[in-house]
Amino acid sequence: MAKDFAQGELKIEHRRTSSEGTSDGGLPSPYHETGAPINRSPTAEAISRKPQNGGLLWPRIRHFMREPMSEFIGTFILIMFGDGVVAQVVLSKGAKGDYQSISWGWGIGVMLGVYSSGISGAHLNPAVTFANCVFRKFSWRKFPIYVLAQVLGAMCASGVVYANYKSAIDTFEGGAGLRTVPGFSENASAGIFCTYPAEFMTKTGQFFSEFIASTLLMFLIYALKDDGNIGAGNLTPLGLFFVIFGIGACWGWETGYAINLARDFGPRLMSYFLGYGHEVWSAGNYYFWVPMVAPFCGCTFGGFLYDVLLYTGESPINTPYLGLYRFVPGMWHAYDNKRFDEVDVKESSPV
Amino acid sequence: MAKDFAQGELKIEHRRTSSEGTSDGGLPSPYHETGAPINRSPTAEAISRKPQNGGLLWPRIRHFMREPMSEFIGTFILIMFGDGVVAQVVLSKGAKGDYQSISWGWGIGVMLGVYSSGISGAHLNPAVTFANCVFRKFSWRKFPIYVLAQVLGAMCASGVVYANYKSAIDTFEGGAGLRTVPGFSENASAGIFCTYPAEFMTKTGQFFSEFIASTLLMFLIYALKDDGNIGAGNLTPLGLFFVIFGIGACWGWETGYAINLARDFGPRLMSYFLGYGHEVWSAGNYYFWVPMVAPFCGCTFGGFLYDVLLYTGESPINTPYLGLYRFVPGMWHAYDNKRFDEVDVKESSPV
Amino acid sequence: MAKDFAQGELKIEHRRTSSEGTSDGGLPSPYHETGAPINRSPTAEAISRKPQNGGLLWPRIRHFMREPMSEFIGTFILIMFGDGVVAQVVLSKGAKGDYQSISWGWGIGVMLGVYSSGISGAHLNPAVTFANCVFRKFSWRKFPIYVLAQVLGAMCASGVVYANYKSAIDTFEGGAGLRTVPGFSENASAGIFCTYPAEFMTKTGQFFSEFIASTLLMFLIYALKDDGNIGAGNLTPLGLFFVIFGIGACWGWETGYAINLARDFGPRLMSYFLGYGHEVWSAGNYYFWVPMVAPFCGCTFGGFLYDVLLYTGESPINTPYLGLYRFVPGMWHAYDNKRFDEVDVKESSPV
Amino acid sequence: MAKDFAQGELKIEHRRTSSEGTSDGGLPSPYHETGAPINRSPTAEAISRKPQNGGLLWPRIRHFMREPMSEFIGTFILIMFGDGVVAQVVLSKGAKGDYQSISWGWGIGVMLGVYSSGISGAHLNPAVTFANCVFRKFSWRKFPIYVLAQVLGAMCASGVVYANYKSAIDTFEGGAGLRTVPGFSENASAGIFCTYPAEFMTKTGQFFSEFIASTLLMFLIYALKDDGNIGAGNLTPLGLFFVIFGIGACWGWETGYAINLARDFGPRLMSYFLGYGHEVWSAGNYYFWVPMVAPFCGCTFGGFLYDVLLYTGESPINTPYLGLYRFVPGMWHAYDNKRFDEVDVKESSPV
Repeated sequence: MAKDFAQGELKIEHRRTSSEGTSDGGLPSPYHETGAPINRSPTAEAISRKPQNGGLLWPRIRHFMREPMSEFIGTFILIMFGDGVVAQVVLSKGAKGDYQSISWGWGIGVMLGVYSSGISGAHLNPAVTFANCVFRKFSWRKFPIYVLAQVLGAMCASGVVYANYKSAIDTFEGGAGLRTVPGFSENASAGIFCTYPAEFMTKTGQFFSEFIASTLLMFLIYALKDDGNIGAGNLTPLGLFFVIFGIGACWGWETGYAINLARDFGPRLMSYFLGYGHEVWSAGNYYFWVPMVAPFCGCTFGGFLYDVLLYTGESPINTPYLGLYRFVPGMWHAYDNKRFDEVDVKESSPV
Repeated sequence: MAKDFAQGELKIEHRRTSSEGTSDGGLPSPYHETGAPINRSPTAEAISRKPQNGGLLWPRIRHFMREPMSEFIGTFILIMFGDGVVAQVVLSKGAKGDYQSISWGWGIGVMLGVYSSGISGAHLNPAVTFANCVFRKFSWRKFPIYVLAQVLGAMCASGVVYANYKSAIDTFEGGAGLRTVPGFSENASAGIFCTYPAEFMTKTGQFFSEFIASTLLMFLIYALKDDGNIGAGNLTPLGLFFVIFGIGACWGWETGYAINLARDFGPRLMSYFLGYGHEVWSAGNYYFWVPMVAPFCGCTFGGFLYDVLLYTGESPINTPYLGLYRFVPGMWHAYDNKRFDEVDVKESSPV
Repeated sequence: MAKDFAQGELKIEHRRTSSEGTSDGGLPSPYHETGAPINRSPTAEAISRKPQNGGLLWPRIRHFMREPMSEFIGTFILIMFGDGVVAQVVLSKGAKGDYQSISWGWGIGVMLGVYSSGISGAHLNPAVTFANCVFRKFSWRKFPIYVLAQVLGAMCASGVVYANYKSAIDTFEGGAGLRTVPGFSENASAGIFCTYPAEFMTKTGQFFSEFIASTLLMFLIYALKDDGNIGAGNLTPLGLFFVIFGIGACWGWETGYAINLARDFGPRLMSYFLGYGHEVWSAGNYYFWVPMVAPFCGCTFGGFLYDVLLYTGESPINTPYLGLYRFVPGMWHAYDNKRFDEVDVKESSPV
Repeated sequence: MAKDFAQGELKIEHRRTSSEGTSDGGLPSPYHETGAPINRSPTAEAISRKPQNGGLLWPRIRHFMREPMSEFIGTFILIMFGDGVVAQVVLSKGAKGDYQSISWGWGIGVMLGVYSSGISGAHLNPAVTFANCVFRKFSWRKFPIYVLAQVLGAMCASGVVYANYKSAIDTFEGGAGLRTVPGFSENASAGIFCTYPAEFMTKTGQFFSEFIASTLLMFLIYALKDDGNIGAGNLTPLGLFFVIFGIGACWGWETGYAINLARDFGPRLMSYFLGYGHEVWSAGNYYFWVPMVAPFCGCTFGGFLYDVLLYTGESPINTPYLGLYRFVPGMWHAYDNKRFDEVDVKESSPV
């Protein structure tokens, strides 16, 4: 059932060898009970489960950590391309790219980040993980670990971008020690790392802009992944390229389309550590919390809209009282265990 | 037969459960008789048909409304990206995009709108619905409902674009209350919502330009969807991205390639409601009716050309007198029921 | 065998009904003996072959003409987008597109032209047809008809482009009657229709540039279509988009990458008829013959290179003396009928 | 086993005819023992193995040389588009393309180079070949031959680019004999052929930039090709387009993203032969060795990271002591022959 339900993730065919249950038994893995996908090539995992093969410590550790590691890597790739393209466009003053390059960079970052992190479902975004927890039965227990991995991945990648473009930043800012934030300087380079809103925006407008873009993001992710609709199938990473490109081209001006806590907070923290000063938090009238909060609201709303309006698969929305009955004592058992499982078994068996 | 014939739509595999006929019996659904596609995941629909499950009102309503709702959503997504990109490019005065961004935005809008609205065939355009009625046996009864849903979707999306870019429009126009239309002001922002023709165009030229672009659109939609030709298969939404991008790059200057009543009239009405004044109708020598009428002419001509020149599937064009015999009393029965159905059954049975 | 050999064309699955042989018998069709592909949907063709269905004249005519018609349409679509994008970019003086838009337009033109003309193999270029005759056993008898259809398709499309942009050309040239050619005027618009070389080019350089681009074109078409290599499969039209985009971005400056007699000569003739004067021929030191001749040399060389270096399928290159033995009396029989057919039958039977 | 292991290459289905072993027996082919892929169409190869068919010398030679020839061709195509687009953008002074065109050109070059060279695995880059030797059991014996073929392919292509753009170079440099290198002249055209770093870069920064870009390249190639992850399947060449485009847009400014010894050294040598002088070596403080060395370090590190962090297929990383046991006398036999082969056989048999 968990397998059918997990349409919020890019699924990878799951093949458990028969010996798995016993070999993993002793590990207190938080990823154990949910049937998280394992790769097809059994070698490394198989080796790690052999008792006589005690020398291979790393595959054991890696197996235990494979989902957060995958999220870390996917977000790392995303920010390598995303912050990288902004750095190149800003620091070269448009000689090596323009606004459209930025759309390309973020779109490619998401596409290749997804290709790199299929093992964990390629969320790359705490708000996407949150929406999957709410609407696609993704385990709430994994939520904090995913978020941590995503934020760390984004932080590390922004550090690599900084290291790579350090000379160029010095040249751009006008001095080796200068590090300034948009709104406080003409040659501010902090916009490379995280988003700063356009000056004419009110706080409400900032929130609304991020909210709308996040809603679109989640709605379209669910649309691309819904086999009951057209569904993008193996074209999903390419489809996500277009989604991100489109959001950047159409909704990206006012607030820079962070639409992702990890993408914005991780590099912002890193830029703070790197000496950009307190202004990274105070800029845009303390804008920094907007791309942390709005994506959760927007993605949840986007997922809600998709499930209410179009989705016919298993979702809390497609249960009595939009799934809220779960919070009423006694009703969980009444609805959840009896009726819908029966319906499921009966209806889907002849297919 | 209806299934074989419906090549004008993006088909989704149709699976009716055995209990469907009885459960839907009491509903006066206009979508009942044509075998409209249902999603594969049966849960929600199945639940909605269970008499003992009377609590789930919404899936019942949704099932009844699912096709217009799908068109509404698809057109909404289309305009969110389409009007959004124009707003960003115009209001940022080219700093956050150029003419090519607009091609991207509309192409992505159509692509993602199609991915979102597969349930209803992803027309997103009254003229496409019209052509499908004429050439692909799409039910005429659905035509007005589809058109209404498309126009409403476009209106709502343009309202969201307005809400998001309100501050920027104020800044661009030069004042909070100012809302002006191209041709009447230097800083007119009405072009965000709907199309206004280039100044040198005559009325004939305007009509011709929209007509040609619509003809190309419909011809190429039928080409992409014709399995008897190469056919784009699961690449169809991507192919449509290129079609729209190409029409924008090659035929988009003179009139702004509306090629869609819903895309142009819906947002135009919304911009009228939002205070852009009577000029939204009178601009370009009362241009507004051209993108309402020309797409119907163009799409019908484009579908006609494709069927006359290339299509070998079931089409009125591939019947005696180009299908016009249907309008001659007595001939419908003679041709339609006898000969062609026989031919169909005989020829396609051994395949 | 013809089927296996025809890798130069986009193949469409061929399904002949059993009655075909007898029904077509009386038609002197030049497309009969080569097993040209028919669409899958049998209705129209089937109807046209029924003797009792004498009323359907058009499908009979269309069936007879379907290959040249398909080439006509494909080339028409190609030029609609190709000349259309040049018109928009040139006439709007860069406001509605730049050089990259032109790469997009021609790439999309080829891609959608191919999607529209799968029935005839989607050559869209006399030089491609020629190379297919030489290397892929495409019937020489069809060569002149294909070329004629391609040139006519390009002419008609350029006429439509002219009609659509007539007002804009008047504005651009500076007067309703003015029609000038690059090199003879500052505001020349003849470059919309056909190619004119950069001024610094020598005749040798012009020829070499067209030759190289044509060689790349044919080599890459054969690479994309070679299942013995990676092969693009259903991504072939998309791959051709990238081929054309790349040739335009990398080899398009000096001569405008005509690489196609039909694309250049057809619209050039049309522009002559439309009043651009004798300069359409004399410009660039009578450049006009270069894009007529060089593509044939280049495409033949490109096909030759691919077959000599990489291709392992059936090709004259993979026969004794590179297939030239055919021109030596008596050797045809010795090699062609005996050895290779035997080899073919024996080797490929167990597969 | 070799087949399962060779995930670093684009695999082509391998079909050996039964007579192959005997017919190839006498040839001292270095490609014999590794089961290198042969094309599906057997004709030419089959003919070449027939003793009675002694006349067909070329297919015999070609069969023997087919892998280096394929690498030669792939790298040739890559540089034709890559150096071609730089030539067009630089020499036309931006009139016929901008920085984004360069991203397009290199992306298309890699994509089409890969489509052309599937027979040899489409490495196109000595560092990729090196990483495949280290991590994917690619034969070390082939390494020098692959590198030679790649460098020669790049040299030849850059010569063709030079020949094509000779007049334009003369015009750009300001005289027929002038050939200058960036940093030594305002109108330097040597940047067409190979990369020269931005002026503000230190040697460490140059190396780091190339190292990072190469790491990304190899990591993402392995990600795209890993069926245990999502895997790009037949979209791999398209995915590589996005990888190269992204590296160019995000990491391409500082050093020009050579990330390939063949791409940089081959054309640099050619430009030296063509008269650009000793400066091609001394420019950027003898930068020329950086794009020769850094890609090997970067690609090896990228492959290492992928295998350590994500890859579960057969890799030295997934063996005891990260595969380094192979260099300890006696341990090879202990681990390699016994344990892992057993594991392999047992685990993978029921699949």
